[in-house]
Amino acid sequence: MGAEMKRYKKMDFPVGDIRRFLEPGPVVLVSSAYKGERNIMTMGWHTVMEFVPSLVGCVISSGNHSYELVSRSKECVINVPTADLARIVARIGNCSGRETDKFKKFKLTDAPAEHVGAPLIAECYASLECKLADGLMVGKYNFFIFEVVKAHVPRVPKYPKTIHYRGGGQFMVSGRALDLRRLFRPEML
Amino acid sequence: MGAEMKRYKKMDFPVGDIRRFLEPGPVVLVSSAYKGERNIMTMGWHTVMEFVPSLVGCVISSGNHSYELVSRSKECVINVPTADLARIVARIGNCSGRETDKFKKFKLTDAPAEHVGAPLIAECYASLECKLADGLMVGKYNFFIFEVVKAHVPRVPKYPKTIHYRGGGQFMVSGRALDLRRLFRPEML
Repeated sequence: MGAEMKRYKKMDFPVGDIRRFLEPGPVVLVSSAYKGERNIMTMGWHTVMEFVPSLVGCVISSGNHSYELVSRSKECVINVPTADLARIVARIGNCSGRETDKFKKFKLTDAPAEHVGAPLIAECYASLECKLADGLMVGKYNFFIFEVVKAHVPRVPKYPKTIHYRGGGQFMVSGRALDLRRLFRPEML
Repeated sequence: MGAEMKRYKKMDFPVGDIRRFLEPGPVVLVSSAYKGERNIMTMGWHTVMEFVPSLVGCVISSGNHSYELVSRSKECVINVPTADLARIVARIGNCSGRETDKFKKFKLTDAPAEHVGAPLIAECYASLECKLADGLMVGKYNFFIFEVVKAHVPRVPKYPKTIHYRGGGQFMVSGRALDLRRLFRPEML
């Protein structure tokens, strides 16, 4: 890790199309910031909820340090890591930001976002700037509904190799692509 | 398809452990029933929300026929199909249950559930009987929060080969397993 980690050069990407990266269900890294503090957490409980506005719902447990930063700032960045970061993703999920600055600890590069205070993670494939759209379900379920207000995605690869969590320390790495366009009605594409 | 499709012999499975199948983010088939009508829809927008009770949140668009059956019966079964069913999964997502009985059309076998009126799909790997736990977000977001009240899962394989949707008719098939248990704190496993 560290010096060998790739940093992606990212471009502006249509926020209505970010299902491409989230709907397959990868583990993501959520970066957040509030009053000079910042953090990163590993998150597996998320779902696309709407194309326009681009909504993503996710569970950030109140036991996490990130819960404080996200619920106070009402912002975060959802970063999609690729399989080469799997060990770091697991280690980030197994330590608390209360005790350590995870950017420093894991030698990750913070890059400034455009619309939110939380930093992008340069070593992740895609970074989605998010603003809280609806906090009604936070109290009961720790469920945040975010609007993706800007998406940063590299031109290549079109489909990154992502990691998906099964619980118990077991991950799945995304596999082969399957093109079934011919079975779709035009309006479904 | 049809006669060659495998039917899984399923066992009772702890509902608190169903993240193993849903958290990696596969496309699922939602079966539903209401007053003698039944249907199947393809769904990609779902997330685990809690272990105990076992909660799953998902978007069922009000444009779908299944929306009527699920919102009236307040029940459904979430079935996890494997990669060999990919073409059927795509085709189910591209026709409406208003015009056709999808069990018949796609030669799928309905099996009785124990706690809900909706049928299990015998050709799917796992089947999760769900009861509506919270409908507060249905009106605004078509977002249903279900409690998984019973799970049916075969003994093998432990990790099925699932399909994951990227939009635009493009799927990803689940790939290799990655065991990172050694990086986890005991209480995180």
